[in-house]
Amino acid sequence: MDGVRGLGGDATALRKLNTARVLRVLHRAGAVTLTELTKATELSRSAVEGAIEELLATGLVTEVEPVSGGPRPLGRPARRFRFRIDAGHVLGVHVSPHKVYAVLGDLHGEIVETRRVELTPDLPGPERLVRLRRTAHQCLQAAGITKDDLWAVAVGTPGLVGRTGKISLCSVLDGWTGLDLAGELGAHFPCPVLVENDANTAAMGERWRGVARDIDDVVCVLADHKLGVGVVIDGRVHRGSHGAAGELGALPNSPWAAANDFLVNSEHDPARVFADPRAAAEVADFVEALANGIATMALAVDPELVVLGGVIADCGPALLERLSARVPGLCLTPPRLVLSELVDDAVALGALRVALDEAEKRLFAISAS
Amino acid sequence: MDGVRGLGGDATALRKLNTARVLRVLHRAGAVTLTELTKATELSRSAVEGAIEELLATGLVTEVEPVSGGPRPLGRPARRFRFRIDAGHVLGVHVSPHKVYAVLGDLHGEIVETRRVELTPDLPGPERLVRLRRTAHQCLQAAGITKDDLWAVAVGTPGLVGRTGKISLCSVLDGWTGLDLAGELGAHFPCPVLVENDANTAAMGERWRGVARDIDDVVCVLADHKLGVGVVIDGRVHRGSHGAAGELGALPNSPWAAANDFLVNSEHDPARVFADPRAAAEVADFVEALANGIATMALAVDPELVVLGGVIADCGPALLERLSARVPGLCLTPPRLVLSELVDDAVALGALRVALDEAEKRLFAISAS
Repeated sequence: MDGVRGLGGDATALRKLNTARVLRVLHRAGAVTLTELTKATELSRSAVEGAIEELLATGLVTEVEPVSGGPRPLGRPARRFRFRIDAGHVLGVHVSPHKVYAVLGDLHGEIVETRRVELTPDLPGPERLVRLRRTAHQCLQAAGITKDDLWAVAVGTPGLVGRTGKISLCSVLDGWTGLDLAGELGAHFPCPVLVENDANTAAMGERWRGVARDIDDVVCVLADHKLGVGVVIDGRVHRGSHGAAGELGALPNSPWAAANDFLVNSEHDPARVFADPRAAAEVADFVEALANGIATMALAVDPELVVLGGVIADCGPALLERLSARVPGLCLTPPRLVLSELVDDAVALGALRVALDEAEKRLFAISAS
Repeated sequence: MDGVRGLGGDATALRKLNTARVLRVLHRAGAVTLTELTKATELSRSAVEGAIEELLATGLVTEVEPVSGGPRPLGRPARRFRFRIDAGHVLGVHVSPHKVYAVLGDLHGEIVETRRVELTPDLPGPERLVRLRRTAHQCLQAAGITKDDLWAVAVGTPGLVGRTGKISLCSVLDGWTGLDLAGELGAHFPCPVLVENDANTAAMGERWRGVARDIDDVVCVLADHKLGVGVVIDGRVHRGSHGAAGELGALPNSPWAAANDFLVNSEHDPARVFADPRAAAEVADFVEALANGIATMALAVDPELVVLGGVIADCGPALLERLSARVPGLCLTPPRLVLSELVDDAVALGALRVALDEAEKRLFAISAS
């Protein structure tokens, strides 16, 4: 008996671990029976039963109709349970010079509603903030939920973003430098609000639902109003100490500066100029500048993949071909180059993923034993 | 009873967790009593007793003499236990154009022996490999142990190192390009052998025992025969997909190229030239090139700290002062700059840390439950 008593002090911690393990299986699977859960978790049947009782009480799990006429025609049909993916929601928002785009997801990250509002680049900061909140609320309303149903909100924005979600520098949005965006939104949402640089968020979006799926070291070049660079290392966004990782444009005589000029001169429609044979010289300069910037990031970080996102993705395979011909000559170990397929959606989807990560942290949180 | 039986299936996994928890406390602490262990681990006394029995059987833990005349003058003195830091050893080695330097440590990372052999930069590769092995063995011999007592060996070397410890490119050591260094050494040591780029290893050394202690995002500029850059992100070496992270020197017209020329022209004694008033123009070019390279890494990775290591650290505070005056003008969020104090020892110490990490992984390994 002494051994059993010895285990007693840790029984609560163990029960929490068991519950988390059962929840993880339910979260991944559809409707499952106790027998299937016992097999998948490798826990005892009574431990699974205890976990299910706890999870039913939290509302995270629900019992579904048994399947009649199934493999147990003679006995009582087996009870089945499933994770309630609508037990909570998460919201990802992209705020940019041109728009606010809000994407609402369930706890599996499936999109249940979106809302997009066009804005002008010169909109004053306070007004942009109002539009951001309004668009978010309209998105919730359209889905028939309230902000109390949200488990997390994440926003992708241009600018240098500090660890607490304050924007220390933003050259493209009025009133954004110095704005405590996480604080401002946190006052309106009763859940955690996270703020992330748009290029970093785009990189997360590409890794989750785009061309960088399952790749751990990714650099994402995002051409929105300006060129930005998002860095994912070991599967996680690398912000750097001041939220400034990837800000190559700040270096005097940086190659990004010339590439940015091309974006501005093309009125943010580089694809149109790229296809214009009279603009061959400008296009050549643009390709050279972009190749140099990509090579610099490749030499500094050595990613497996570089994703070209935002409006430059519209230039299509011809851009990819020209960059692929140039980048290998500029660095030791050239990364794979690929065009974004998510293009304009990458930032909002990445923000949704960031919000979902926060929600899953809460979902699977177990107290330290 | 059903609840207790429900826990039964996980009792083995739980016992392993308990043993690992007790071992962690013993590994950190000196000699401790069962009561102290019970308090520190928050386990039941019988669980601690069970763990101690297991650990005594493995030889990792030993019982020490009880303290008489202590706080229990009337009763039997409490039994005390300690982790046997000499239950195994780890070896860190720096191989460079000029030397092999081997550092032997116990399982706490305390240095128990060192051995250093000077080499010439033009030594043929196979001969350098023989010297490396010989120096390692002499180091073990001097400490009175054999290679069977080693839990891990790690080597810091110039060149691009792949994940399996094969060197894909090395421009400074003969015969090193294409060498499977981990494989060659693995045939001689019955423990894991890890190989790491020297600048990365130096960064780990600085983080463990040098000026970058407890800092998670660090860039280490190592001037040995050439300039190298080591990158630590989130406390871990960032190698990149091809082991090429930080290889800025490969970019055409790279600032590193000019800084490298200064190293070569000074015959790898930059401090001598740096202090020579007749070399003011070369020194100014060197500072400008170095500042540009540091700013590029700062913009790409945004580290909290940049460590200047190897022979450039010998240039002293005057170099630091000139770089500190220049770097902030070249990047948005300038990192702190600091001179290495470990200088020539950083790579070997970092290799020792890498070997120790491998040994601790083995030490605390618990089977997946």
